[in-house]
Amino acid sequence: MQIKDRTWLEKIKYNQDGLIPVITQDEETGRILMLAWMNEKTLKKTVDEEIVTYWSRSRRKNWTKGEESGHIQTLVSVQLDCDGDALLLKVKQRGGIACHTGRNSCFYSELDKSGWKTVEPVLKNPKEIYQNE
Amino acid sequence: MQIKDRTWLEKIKYNQDGLIPVITQDEETGRILMLAWMNEKTLKKTVDEEIVTYWSRSRRKNWTKGEESGHIQTLVSVQLDCDGDALLLKVKQRGGIACHTGRNSCFYSELDKSGWKTVEPVLKNPKEIYQNE
Repeated sequence: MQIKDRTWLEKIKYNQDGLIPVITQDEETGRILMLAWMNEKTLKKTVDEEIVTYWSRSRRKNWTKGEESGHIQTLVSVQLDCDGDALLLKVKQRGGIACHTGRNSCFYSELDKSGWKTVEPVLKNPKEIYQNE
Repeated sequence: MQIKDRTWLEKIKYNQDGLIPVITQDEETGRILMLAWMNEKTLKKTVDEEIVTYWSRSRRKNWTKGEESGHIQTLVSVQLDCDGDALLLKVKQRGGIACHTGRNSCFYSELDKSGWKTVEPVLKNPKEIYQNE
């Protein structure tokens, strides 16, 4: 998306590490796919390219979602909350798989009386997804 | 919800401040209402009581959503992500208003070519919501 000026970036409040949490929602199903983090550069890149790039806290580098798996996320919209410290992205999820376990959503564990229960099927074996690694 | 043992709490990974980000989704509409934070105590309290209590980072105290406004959130389900460091709650939102601005969702600003644009109406004047303060 081409935005006329860059003042929109000034509304964002980052945490002490320069990061903001990002909720990613499938725009078709309304399901929450994942929660990840962005810094200013990855947010700008995501909006410019309309392909979602997060900041990987574990690897400490830009992480274009799907760069290894092919399960990229195409940006549909960006929303900011009232405090300016959380983002909601609506995306088109290629392959219908956001999780590295091969599931649609990363939130596949649900609490019931006996503890955490897996409530989503594996759609594709991770060994097949990451076969080039 | 009564859970037989407490081992489910051990799966949760908190940040350096002892907090975990919580996405709150309206279980009827699928809309994202807000992103807030919990510590172990407020998570346990929320699951026990089935009424959502967050940890307010600004006020540094437990914050039962709706304690002032009446717009409480009744817990429907709790989901944990694959890394164990983010939660998704599905809730029933009393009054259909989660935001302190009187809107349904806190994510009422959407990015377009000219910057952030308010895309949600105020359903109730905050002065009426918080008239007892």
